[in-house]
Amino acid sequence: MIVADDILLMIPGPTNLPPQVREALGRPSFYHRGKDFADLLAFCTDALRRVFQTSDDVLILNSSGTGGVEAAIVNTLSPGDRVLVVDGGKFGERMVEIATTYGARVDVLTVERGQAADPAEVRARLDGHVALLFVQNETSTGVRQDADLLAAAARERGALTVVDTVSSMGGMSIPVEAWGLDAVAAGSQKALMLPPGLAFVSMSERAWAAAEKARMPKFYFDLKAAQESLGKGQTPWTPNVNMFRALRAALELILGEGLEKVWQRHHALGEATRAAVEALGLELFSDREHASDVVTAVRSPEGIDSQVLVKNVSAKHGILISGGQSELRGKIFRVGHMGWCQIDDVLRTIQATAMELKALGFEVSVGDALTAARAAYAKATGEEKR
Amino acid sequence: MIVADDILLMIPGPTNLPPQVREALGRPSFYHRGKDFADLLAFCTDALRRVFQTSDDVLILNSSGTGGVEAAIVNTLSPGDRVLVVDGGKFGERMVEIATTYGARVDVLTVERGQAADPAEVRARLDGHVALLFVQNETSTGVRQDADLLAAAARERGALTVVDTVSSMGGMSIPVEAWGLDAVAAGSQKALMLPPGLAFVSMSERAWAAAEKARMPKFYFDLKAAQESLGKGQTPWTPNVNMFRALRAALELILGEGLEKVWQRHHALGEATRAAVEALGLELFSDREHASDVVTAVRSPEGIDSQVLVKNVSAKHGILISGGQSELRGKIFRVGHMGWCQIDDVLRTIQATAMELKALGFEVSVGDALTAARAAYAKATGEEKR
Repeated sequence: MIVADDILLMIPGPTNLPPQVREALGRPSFYHRGKDFADLLAFCTDALRRVFQTSDDVLILNSSGTGGVEAAIVNTLSPGDRVLVVDGGKFGERMVEIATTYGARVDVLTVERGQAADPAEVRARLDGHVALLFVQNETSTGVRQDADLLAAAARERGALTVVDTVSSMGGMSIPVEAWGLDAVAAGSQKALMLPPGLAFVSMSERAWAAAEKARMPKFYFDLKAAQESLGKGQTPWTPNVNMFRALRAALELILGEGLEKVWQRHHALGEATRAAVEALGLELFSDREHASDVVTAVRSPEGIDSQVLVKNVSAKHGILISGGQSELRGKIFRVGHMGWCQIDDVLRTIQATAMELKALGFEVSVGDALTAARAAYAKATGEEKR
Repeated sequence: MIVADDILLMIPGPTNLPPQVREALGRPSFYHRGKDFADLLAFCTDALRRVFQTSDDVLILNSSGTGGVEAAIVNTLSPGDRVLVVDGGKFGERMVEIATTYGARVDVLTVERGQAADPAEVRARLDGHVALLFVQNETSTGVRQDADLLAAAARERGALTVVDTVSSMGGMSIPVEAWGLDAVAAGSQKALMLPPGLAFVSMSERAWAAAEKARMPKFYFDLKAAQESLGKGQTPWTPNVNMFRALRAALELILGEGLEKVWQRHHALGEATRAAVEALGLELFSDREHASDVVTAVRSPEGIDSQVLVKNVSAKHGILISGGQSELRGKIFRVGHMGWCQIDDVLRTIQATAMELKALGFEVSVGDALTAARAAYAKATGEEKR
């Protein structure tokens, strides 16, 4: 095998796979138009409804997360529609590109990298726009948007919300129905503990009403076709049946642990990571109040190229963390802590990163960082009270 | 597990997975922007070039085969372009739907189900069309088109060829470059011995020239983006890294057996199946001269509903064959013999099908069918001479 299998993935996707998921992936393929598949699809759709916290169907697409975002856009909009896109990073930029490609008239609300959008500013900018598009969790900067407030602003202004939750769904509580998020796309390779390759899209009643009029062309990503097939226990195009089996295994694990517990674990892992960052004398790249619970972005200390740090942590410790993308390359590093991830994985990562920072000349106390992380984790999970 | 794992899949996809592919699927995920993935992508792209018999890049997409066909269409055409689609079955109809959805002006050359298109008629119908679209192997009817002659006709008339080889690539020799096929889409879950979920598209120089002017919108399926990323050892969107590992395993098996031998094996399995059909006194649904080497379609005998036959073969023998689709439902049954499939699998299937035909009142000699199949296989593989 040319691929090293003993690497701990602490990047914001692909993430580590649970043994149950790996076992399911390696089972035989099977027929996708029979009762077995219909049962599997029904189970997964129902479980995803719980993950999305919605009573609407969640449609399962065979594509990466970007395909899901494209589906959410082209099924709700028409060429010429005016939309406002919140651009706070690489994935906000991608929403701009998709909407533009399909002929929307795109206004961009640029948010400083590392900051969340101000809902009041968004509300003020919305002016006859058909839809507000935003990324709930911007992987490139480690920022969580106030999706509830942005959705409220959109609703007040009569705009639909199209939301990218590719990196966050499953790892954070995103009450899709209660917050009124209309077209919401998620991906498989992040908190949902699968390889890349499946996307999940929920559509509200308002989104389906928009879909009736939406004229952006789509065939493979036609959600109405997916919805009709779902009624027959099928998908419109041949699904990756092995990935569906694995999806069931992952969803069983998540529901078995309990959604509240899963979200709490992610929050606690985020708290632990942030406490370590502070104890190390480093600076979060993202606004503390809007720091993501699935990925933490950290400014690289003065004089240290984060690409070198990432490389050393990987080479010497077998742990993969991420650098920065585009203009942030070399300037930040990012730690993913989502999906099949426990506090020990985070502690190993903190230790390795701290040691390599030290080796690069940045004076830190590895022990203090680990102590702070353990304490923050215990506090966030309530374990300290036991 | 609710899914039965001991079913022999003799349907035209998904097909049975080799153990090496299953093992690869169940390995850990890994990072998709590092050297490991770049090496894997390079190996797969190069091996696929050999399978496609072309010196052009073969782009690997994360979608089912239909996504690959959509990519081939939207990357080469513009809204308003006049195209001619050969419609000889369900997948020909799908090409009509895709091209129409994206605004092409579609002329349809309808071919009687079970028959191949007449290249002279196609040439005569081509009249200023930008492209000729056809399905090289129509899974729904078991018909192989004369792709070489259709491509020659298109070239003579100045039309690009957009070809669906989803169910045949890898199982039949389709010399993409020598025949001058321009945009060619294949799928993973047929002769290529993988689960569904990857599509493969080759683009000729003519196709790339067309892509420069093609105005049908695309983002996820933008082949120029895929081509640019390939140059960096990447894919534009996060790839299913587990499927890529499995793809390597499958391609290693195929190249290890030898492409010529793989094609010969498929041809021999087709010959065996057709000989059995004849010995059973049944009638091929497809024209004998254009019968596919990866799937055989058979008319159900007078008074026997093929759906009942399919059900009985599955329930009593653990072997899954297919019925007919749409207007052919109940009237034909189909046996897939591709990918991870050997003569013993075909013999088991013939025996089970013959027994169930007998149980339904159709008088046959099971022994004669098996003898005929064995003899045809030996003849086609040259084993009889040894």
